[in-house]
Amino acid sequence: MPTGPIRLTDRASSALRPATAASITGGFWAERRRANAEVSIPQGPARLESAGNLANLRAAAAGEGAFTGDFPFQDSDVHKWLEAASWQLADTPDDAELAAKVAELTGLLAAAQESDGYLQTYYQVAHPEKRWQELGWGHELYCAGHLIQAAVAHHRATDRRELLDVAERFAVLVDSVFGPGKEIDGVCGHPEIETALVELYRETGERRWLDLAGYFVDRRGHGLLDAEVNAHLGKAYWQDHTPVREATSVAGHAVRQLYLLAAVTDLAAETGDGELRAVAERLWDAMVASKTYLTGGLGARHEGEAFGEPYELPPDRAYAETCASIAAIQWSWRMALLTGDAKYSDLVERTLYNGFLAGVGLDGDSWLYVNPLQVREAYEGGYEPDKTARRTPWFRCACCPPNVMRLLASLPHYLASGDAEGLQLHQYATGVYEAGGGRVRVETAYPWQGRITVTVEEAPEDADWTLSLRIPSWCTDFTASAPDGEAPAETHPGWLRLRRRWSPGDTLTLDLEVETRLTRPDPYVDAVRGCVAIERGPLVHCLEAVDQAPGLRFEDLTLPDGARLAAHHDPGLLGGVTVVTADGRSRGAEDVVPLTAVPYYAWANRRPGAMRVWIPRE
Amino acid sequence: MPTGPIRLTDRASSALRPATAASITGGFWAERRRANAEVSIPQGPARLESAGNLANLRAAAAGEGAFTGDFPFQDSDVHKWLEAASWQLADTPDDAELAAKVAELTGLLAAAQESDGYLQTYYQVAHPEKRWQELGWGHELYCAGHLIQAAVAHHRATDRRELLDVAERFAVLVDSVFGPGKEIDGVCGHPEIETALVELYRETGERRWLDLAGYFVDRRGHGLLDAEVNAHLGKAYWQDHTPVREATSVAGHAVRQLYLLAAVTDLAAETGDGELRAVAERLWDAMVASKTYLTGGLGARHEGEAFGEPYELPPDRAYAETCASIAAIQWSWRMALLTGDAKYSDLVERTLYNGFLAGVGLDGDSWLYVNPLQVREAYEGGYEPDKTARRTPWFRCACCPPNVMRLLASLPHYLASGDAEGLQLHQYATGVYEAGGGRVRVETAYPWQGRITVTVEEAPEDADWTLSLRIPSWCTDFTASAPDGEAPAETHPGWLRLRRRWSPGDTLTLDLEVETRLTRPDPYVDAVRGCVAIERGPLVHCLEAVDQAPGLRFEDLTLPDGARLAAHHDPGLLGGVTVVTADGRSRGAEDVVPLTAVPYYAWANRRPGAMRVWIPRE
Repeated sequence: MPTGPIRLTDRASSALRPATAASITGGFWAERRRANAEVSIPQGPARLESAGNLANLRAAAAGEGAFTGDFPFQDSDVHKWLEAASWQLADTPDDAELAAKVAELTGLLAAAQESDGYLQTYYQVAHPEKRWQELGWGHELYCAGHLIQAAVAHHRATDRRELLDVAERFAVLVDSVFGPGKEIDGVCGHPEIETALVELYRETGERRWLDLAGYFVDRRGHGLLDAEVNAHLGKAYWQDHTPVREATSVAGHAVRQLYLLAAVTDLAAETGDGELRAVAERLWDAMVASKTYLTGGLGARHEGEAFGEPYELPPDRAYAETCASIAAIQWSWRMALLTGDAKYSDLVERTLYNGFLAGVGLDGDSWLYVNPLQVREAYEGGYEPDKTARRTPWFRCACCPPNVMRLLASLPHYLASGDAEGLQLHQYATGVYEAGGGRVRVETAYPWQGRITVTVEEAPEDADWTLSLRIPSWCTDFTASAPDGEAPAETHPGWLRLRRRWSPGDTLTLDLEVETRLTRPDPYVDAVRGCVAIERGPLVHCLEAVDQAPGLRFEDLTLPDGARLAAHHDPGLLGGVTVVTADGRSRGAEDVVPLTAVPYYAWANRRPGAMRVWIPRE
Repeated sequence: MPTGPIRLTDRASSALRPATAASITGGFWAERRRANAEVSIPQGPARLESAGNLANLRAAAAGEGAFTGDFPFQDSDVHKWLEAASWQLADTPDDAELAAKVAELTGLLAAAQESDGYLQTYYQVAHPEKRWQELGWGHELYCAGHLIQAAVAHHRATDRRELLDVAERFAVLVDSVFGPGKEIDGVCGHPEIETALVELYRETGERRWLDLAGYFVDRRGHGLLDAEVNAHLGKAYWQDHTPVREATSVAGHAVRQLYLLAAVTDLAAETGDGELRAVAERLWDAMVASKTYLTGGLGARHEGEAFGEPYELPPDRAYAETCASIAAIQWSWRMALLTGDAKYSDLVERTLYNGFLAGVGLDGDSWLYVNPLQVREAYEGGYEPDKTARRTPWFRCACCPPNVMRLLASLPHYLASGDAEGLQLHQYATGVYEAGGGRVRVETAYPWQGRITVTVEEAPEDADWTLSLRIPSWCTDFTASAPDGEAPAETHPGWLRLRRRWSPGDTLTLDLEVETRLTRPDPYVDAVRGCVAIERGPLVHCLEAVDQAPGLRFEDLTLPDGARLAAHHDPGLLGGVTVVTADGRSRGAEDVVPLTAVPYYAWANRRPGAMRVWIPRE
């Protein structure tokens, strides 16, 4: 059974199934995950301590004390850290220190929980009289959702029930209070519990959780939050602007929208609801067509942390919240499993390597909440209140850091899937993946190099079996060589498939041509007209001021059509990156100016300064 | 003495003085002012009634009842309407109905005022315990400022004291409470009282008001609002981020910043404070260099209604609040008087004809709060909560409509000035202007045509006298002819000056060449790279979907380099406008596509649809 997120039930109608086991053992992601395991996750409890999250739990447990922090959803940071730590324990089950910390925080949650199952310290400590009274802004069901996700992760990873008991008690309370004809017919201003309840259904087999998720998804968009909603932010902020089955566009608060759509996909998978599946497909296509940054980032507006209008994709004021990238990966991966369509994993890849990964510093201890595609030389960020274009050790609203932790900790499970025919590799990372009745070992220097070597470790002995490798949409040329000199081709859009009798030790080698390329923007995206971006493989590159020749005005740098490009790997730079250089110009000057472009994910790890992904052509 | 805004004292160090009398009698602005006088202002009280503003005053007077509306500053809408109506009464003193309405609302204010002079219904009716306790968001001094401005207008225009008595009582209370060593050492989150107090000083001659204004200006930026300030919006939102004398950039909430800087200029003029003058000059230059839209609009961000970063000027998400245009006109006009520099009146002109005037519909009864330079074909504005790219009859936060009313009602006083040498015409509108010891009559079909005929009606009989006409910065060619065949030239930057002996009936004719021109954006403004804008005289033009050839995708329209342009006046369109046509293209098609561009101020008066000022070149 899979130890990562999503454990489809037998009744699920997904085209593909999650891998039953997956581990990353080397290469690019192993390094990023090492920082996660050795720095980010271990430091989490101290951050939660100093931000007051743990004090809030103690206050709730003691029944006395004040609430610390500005937001009602502070508990969710604890829940997300617990989820991250739980997935981490699946990798490193012998980490006694981490296990002890998880046990300690689980104990705190259990102690803070009310006898009826309720658990949200903001309302317990600061406003007990307002329990369930502020569904728009209160985040009670949102916190319940993250608690449930954490508990599912903990149970799945460790087979222990302590946290699951806490979560189930809260879920039982929610189910007794919310629903048609019950005490409250309503929804939460911030979706999250929906997808969590589907996972709880998967973990426990109890149908009530699936039904409750379906209720929450379908009750939305009927003005239930009207009485409380702040008109200044608009109904879409609360995802209450339209019934989801009628939606034609992703809209409003990006993270809320994306968590909701992950649940829509989960429901479609588990119930076979074709209408919900069509909604998810339609909204995903619309999002990618006109509301997605080159980095995979989502959310064009700081105001309301919102998607914005179609083709409104400013590079400088991109919000592209780290959490939105995480939510999009979670949603797209569910879509990939549901449909088997490679385009969903293409977006997962784009987001993983760019919009998502930029959210955490190379040190594992500095974070970006918003992920702009441009910072100007004249940047005055001092007037910005909070979410600046500078890395910071934690946030007043600290949703992103533990969210990054949980995604990195569970990352192996977003890479491979299986079905009755065989195993599919969606992303390429050195490691071992078990799915579709077989097991393969992958070795690769991806994304720096395009060679992927897949060695079969286990396959059906007396039957044909299919190994499927995704051909990334950025790749225009590749070769593949299989045992016996076979040269398989792309047989389905985006998939290279080889069906044959496999023996342990058989090797399939895929060579993706990784070339540096210049990407022109969609002509309907006004904000980057006349510009070009540098990409190489799955990586979006950017110019950082620190890398450019001194004495020039950064804002004058251009990359004319036909400029010569080159790439070289620099193992000493930014943890080892491939650097792209280009023959640029500086406006008003005649001579060629060398431009240096590093991968976007690695920006803002040195001296602060200007940055741009989209470079003017003249 | 001037009956419009700004009545400089004899001690003021301004280079120029406001006109002593001014009236617009025909032409472009007479039409816009007619809608203001016949529709906007007369409808004001009914709007204030239905929005609850007047009910709030009655509740305060009665000492019972509930507060209506979402904002503590609702009273200021009443004050601004009273200011507008007062300036209007200077034009139409025999309008008994308007005078009666002014008297009625003045009576309401007097009845609502507390015995100690306090007057803000939000705190009187809803939160009496919080008086002076929420200086950041409370807007008490802001409302006091608008009350004072209204009272000065009323007194100046009608010589009646009823409203001035109310305002002075409040001002006395403020002066007794605020100040060094007094009950409160603090400032208001929204500047406005500062410039109002300078005007009260000018109207009454009482030095204490000037001193109090100086105190408020200099106490700002020292963290006085820290305790209350919402960190999410940042200190610049409240104009508390830096002492104004140390500021190097306009920042934060645009309207707040601009009202504050109007006061800085007022103080520099009245006290001769050279440091304050230098601050105003420096910040004005910085604003025009990197934070001003082609329309004169100010404020690049919806979030925090803020200026944004240098060169951050998105056309689609331009905030460019109508109130910010008004505040900028008020500030720039003060700068023009203080320095005599024509560049300030250039910006007044750009703002008046574009960013400001777009704020009110041609019917005088429909409004724009934000003034974007682009609306896309795919516009989904339904998800926007409030301030959409559609005209609306009033706003939940209705600061803009009465602000437009007061500016249009007092507009004649922003057009001409005088000094010891003679009279200066800053803007061209058919009318009569008295300044610098003389009086002229102006006749012009500006902005449609460039001929301005100035006839001297009165001038010193036995002395030379100087007539100065501003040469707009958009104008590259002009001719002028004076009595006796003289042909005066531009003798100072931006000014055509003719010094001679003038007799009544003498005529000076200025012919400005009004040509349609294509404007390229500043290369540092990323958001409109690769685009071009159509301008003609002081008017910025725009494409509206409704005017374009059917069957084409609006977003595919381009205006290639070298395209042929033509202009014709259409008296039946949009109240009579000059229309520019151009040989455009549609992407992917070979044929020429006719583009039709109307003046930006007149957009959004027909069927809603796409619009753009900046047109892609390819």
